[in-house]
Amino acid sequence: MSTTTLKGQPLDRPVMDSMLRRRMFYTPSFEIYGGVAGLYDYGPPGCALLSNIIDTWRKHFVLEEDMLEVDCPALTPAEVLKTSGHVDKFADWMCKDPKNGDIIRADHFVEEILEARLKGDKEARGVKVEEKEEDPKKKKKKVKGTEAIKLDDAVVKEYEEILAKIDNYGGPELGELITKYDLKNPATGVLPTPPVAFNLMFQTAIGPSSNLPGYLRPETAQGQFVNFAKLLDFNQQQMPFASASIGKSYRNEISPRSGLLRVREFLMAEIEHYVDPQGGKQHHRFDEVKDVELVLLNRHTQLAGQTHVQKVAIGKAVADGTVDNETLGYFLARIHLFLEKIGVDQTKIRFRQHMANEMAHYAADCWDAELLTSYGWIECVGCADRSAYDLTVHAKKTGASLMVRERLAQPITVEEWQVELDKKKFGPHFKKDGKTIEAAVEALTQEQREALAQDLKADGKITVDVEGVGNGKVEISKDLITIERRTRTENTREYTPNVIEPSFGIGRIIYSLIEHNYWTRGSDGGDEARCVLSFPPTVAPTKVLLVPLSGHESFKPLVKYLSLKLRKLGVSSRVDDSSASIGKRYSRNDELGTPLGITIDFQSVQDKTYTLRDRDSTKQVRADEATILAAIKSLVEGEKVWADVEKELPAFEGQEAEVPVR
Amino acid sequence: MSTTTLKGQPLDRPVMDSMLRRRMFYTPSFEIYGGVAGLYDYGPPGCALLSNIIDTWRKHFVLEEDMLEVDCPALTPAEVLKTSGHVDKFADWMCKDPKNGDIIRADHFVEEILEARLKGDKEARGVKVEEKEEDPKKKKKKVKGTEAIKLDDAVVKEYEEILAKIDNYGGPELGELITKYDLKNPATGVLPTPPVAFNLMFQTAIGPSSNLPGYLRPETAQGQFVNFAKLLDFNQQQMPFASASIGKSYRNEISPRSGLLRVREFLMAEIEHYVDPQGGKQHHRFDEVKDVELVLLNRHTQLAGQTHVQKVAIGKAVADGTVDNETLGYFLARIHLFLEKIGVDQTKIRFRQHMANEMAHYAADCWDAELLTSYGWIECVGCADRSAYDLTVHAKKTGASLMVRERLAQPITVEEWQVELDKKKFGPHFKKDGKTIEAAVEALTQEQREALAQDLKADGKITVDVEGVGNGKVEISKDLITIERRTRTENTREYTPNVIEPSFGIGRIIYSLIEHNYWTRGSDGGDEARCVLSFPPTVAPTKVLLVPLSGHESFKPLVKYLSLKLRKLGVSSRVDDSSASIGKRYSRNDELGTPLGITIDFQSVQDKTYTLRDRDSTKQVRADEATILAAIKSLVEGEKVWADVEKELPAFEGQEAEVPVR
Repeated sequence: MSTTTLKGQPLDRPVMDSMLRRRMFYTPSFEIYGGVAGLYDYGPPGCALLSNIIDTWRKHFVLEEDMLEVDCPALTPAEVLKTSGHVDKFADWMCKDPKNGDIIRADHFVEEILEARLKGDKEARGVKVEEKEEDPKKKKKKVKGTEAIKLDDAVVKEYEEILAKIDNYGGPELGELITKYDLKNPATGVLPTPPVAFNLMFQTAIGPSSNLPGYLRPETAQGQFVNFAKLLDFNQQQMPFASASIGKSYRNEISPRSGLLRVREFLMAEIEHYVDPQGGKQHHRFDEVKDVELVLLNRHTQLAGQTHVQKVAIGKAVADGTVDNETLGYFLARIHLFLEKIGVDQTKIRFRQHMANEMAHYAADCWDAELLTSYGWIECVGCADRSAYDLTVHAKKTGASLMVRERLAQPITVEEWQVELDKKKFGPHFKKDGKTIEAAVEALTQEQREALAQDLKADGKITVDVEGVGNGKVEISKDLITIERRTRTENTREYTPNVIEPSFGIGRIIYSLIEHNYWTRGSDGGDEARCVLSFPPTVAPTKVLLVPLSGHESFKPLVKYLSLKLRKLGVSSRVDDSSASIGKRYSRNDELGTPLGITIDFQSVQDKTYTLRDRDSTKQVRADEATILAAIKSLVEGEKVWADVEKELPAFEGQEAEVPVR
Repeated sequence: MSTTTLKGQPLDRPVMDSMLRRRMFYTPSFEIYGGVAGLYDYGPPGCALLSNIIDTWRKHFVLEEDMLEVDCPALTPAEVLKTSGHVDKFADWMCKDPKNGDIIRADHFVEEILEARLKGDKEARGVKVEEKEEDPKKKKKKVKGTEAIKLDDAVVKEYEEILAKIDNYGGPELGELITKYDLKNPATGVLPTPPVAFNLMFQTAIGPSSNLPGYLRPETAQGQFVNFAKLLDFNQQQMPFASASIGKSYRNEISPRSGLLRVREFLMAEIEHYVDPQGGKQHHRFDEVKDVELVLLNRHTQLAGQTHVQKVAIGKAVADGTVDNETLGYFLARIHLFLEKIGVDQTKIRFRQHMANEMAHYAADCWDAELLTSYGWIECVGCADRSAYDLTVHAKKTGASLMVRERLAQPITVEEWQVELDKKKFGPHFKKDGKTIEAAVEALTQEQREALAQDLKADGKITVDVEGVGNGKVEISKDLITIERRTRTENTREYTPNVIEPSFGIGRIIYSLIEHNYWTRGSDGGDEARCVLSFPPTVAPTKVLLVPLSGHESFKPLVKYLSLKLRKLGVSSRVDDSSASIGKRYSRNDELGTPLGITIDFQSVQDKTYTLRDRDSTKQVRADEATILAAIKSLVEGEKVWADVEKELPAFEGQEAEVPVR
């Protein structure tokens, strides 16, 4: 699969990467020290892009729905992450090469070798092999020893099926695959050791005596969950509601590659939406989004080794059960609208459902928003139904109440099996074991009580399992206990909310957004290709470039005046008053994605009219100051597009020589 | 020293603290797990305050001066922090109580005991002792065993002098003070162990093989320094310029207390301004701030055991040498203006110069902006001259060029002592030692060369120190070397910039800001005291509260309409349509610092007029929608204050019963 730019050109990633580094969108961290895999710095345009995306996110989600934003530390005591399951289960499978000591991620290793063999098979069969773009999940290292060897048709089919569900295998199964298919490390010619779990959390110790072990959080979610009771109070006990958090998280990846797509420290924006599990998890604003069309790739399709998708309105997908419930569907649609707003290519989004074994330990269902890049389909937003998992385990561990207590509009009558003990006789009869046995009896389920009621009636006694008392079986006679079906009135209801969690990896979104908005112009004119990043004005790092025609003194007051005016309007601008040609100065800022440019020339000095230039078409219009500023404001706020402005204002055919858009 | 609220009332901190927790400005992290000292979460109003302060900071500093913002990881390889000096020197002095194993921060311990003794002395002399507010640098634990014992006058003077310069002592000196004055731990009655350095960085390991030791950064600065060459390129080699970074930093405090003032994970906003060390570090915008008046407490005053301050225009302070140079002075003034803008009490700011031993290992000079709170004077912003320290050590360690190369406007002629070796004879003469000796000769300073030239003339030979060759002394005769004074022409100049670093602790600023804007009203009316936070509209978490008179259906469309209108204006609002009284609803939002309120009543339904209420005076005006929205916009943008609005619009004497402001 080869990727194209915004204008349909084949993407030359090395050219794009080199531009991104040169212009400091991002750059490897600590590079003068040789760098550290999986750590990147954002430079000035990257920071501005980041901060505009966060700002848009906050408005689109937090402000739009009055979510309760919290900011919690990354440092987390081990006990919290032990309870949440991360200490035991947040791991990748890792092998070691016994010969050279290389550390290998098991799933990537299996994938890489099988793909190499399939490639060799195709070569042997004389099929032309298109150079597959790297996938971020795989090691980019060229697999040595790929030979043109023909495989049996049955083997080809086996390999293809394994690859289609590679995310579905655990460590022992990966180990079996390695043995079964004799997957030797091409670098050494030996089999790697069986996969062992490698926990992905960074560990540290909190406090001077080093006795409080801690981790850097792998997600912001736990900080929100442990605050649930306070948040519910803050929300005046109203359900449903959501909390949200934007912050750095950490994963000690085994071998991070693929630039911003797999890093060890990354910015997340996470929402935890708390919903009553009863009543089908409806959402009161679902109607607003029901017609939003999404591209869906469901679990069953993938398990069948297929990848075909369906484009369907979310209303329909929820109605036919493809997506489990309205709340999950509502957020899938809202995620789609957010990605659309920041400028993601609409033809490069799909929502993929997780397969059963692929899901995180806490998830009941999960859909990923994946964006297509030259590295393949990249998971950029996860939308998981964590059910009541986290709140339940934290409540159980700490004894804190993480429940919602709701006054019932009208009391309900419950008919149930009730147990009554004759306390006066019960205590003296069982002596020291009385309490334990009582607790065991109270814990009996309705089903057990019903069965025991029959035993009691039939035999005049029952036998109850009580751990720790005698041989674990305790006999209770009918003079000590009664079990009857009775009715009871309830005025309140208590429940643990379920959690729907949209979780955004901001770095991955930024990288995909860059690829989706990147193209080159002028490369056919014999000139060097000039890069353009066609970000929407909302997220563009800078909105307006101010370009005085030359270094002439008479332009300076106008430049300063316009800068101030724009700042007053809340529009970010930068000045390029270097001695380079106007065309060159505009080109430099096309690379940075600056959507608009104002040229200040001698005419401007006389009559305060200015030229306004559009980055994408390089078309220009000319008008007086007020008109130009109004046009800029409406473009930046998304009320107009360039075509509107071009219709309304007189065109300007100026001195900027531009090679026409292909 | 007792602290007062914004309205001059004595501050009742427990009442304020309880309100801040109840309203989730911030709350101890992981509280259901017992909490972790020094870790706090920000809740919804805290997050909004944080994000507004950061936004103001970015506009005031980064955008105003086109600073180059970068975002670097907190995970930092050990080598970088070894070079910067943090691995060896970023430590506090720690003692252990040999009896109960308590870990004690040495400087706080000495301070605490001496203060307790001074207090006992005052009691013995019958002087009324005002309860001193805790200082965040001290343990809050009540010092047991404070007895009313009179001290000699000379001892009192000694103690007071020690306390005035407590920040100036190192570990061995603190140990001597403990022995000399027999400072026993009141909890156990024994002397603590001698102070040892405890490094404050959190340590971890990067990567699966754990062979790359790393730390969580203690400051954002190093990430900026190691990018210096790229940043200079990005800035097209123009000097001076600044980089900036906003992010979390980490310090493993020995015993964190005092809420947000001493925490283990905190948000910093740091600027690194790179300046040519030649020419007196002038600043081209210094003129704009020269009349800004600052309250200064200089080093000499403190060393004399005094604390009196001077209020002086920064222009004068730089001219008379109190503040070393224009660039440092420029930033002190800009820091002052920033603090003023976000609503810091102007009577509770001072700039304190660090004493020599108190400065961080990298600093050549440093002034702290300190804010007065009930915990004493709190360092909230540091403004250090780090000289060329960091760039020099990183360049030396890595071999990277972190220099500026400047083409000279006109070439300069340098007269200097030049050494010339007769290579043909030199090599064969010294054989394998030739290279080493040559390097040693090249490294000779101008002074050494001048002296050696005279030796050569007098004796026909010289003796040079060469480590590792023979006995370390090498004789070179005049047939092998000439040393002469010659002239040389230079076209470029290379230098390592100096760095002026304003560094903001955002959490400390937020806490101080809250104290400075806090007051209570109505407490004399028999009612419970009602808390008010009088934040300026710019930083207030929410700008406008929408209050429908009741739950009547006819109000709902208006509430929705106004919410949308305000969002369009970029003004954050919240609705309180609970069943509480209007007065109660306003009170609840006075606590959150919401500056404005719109009441929607039956009149509004008829004629679209609304009441606008001011948080601080509780005064109200009434006008039509457009007028009310225009007034809100001008208040939020700081173009008008409430007094202006009150003059322009008709007053409204409505149904909200407010107890008058004291």
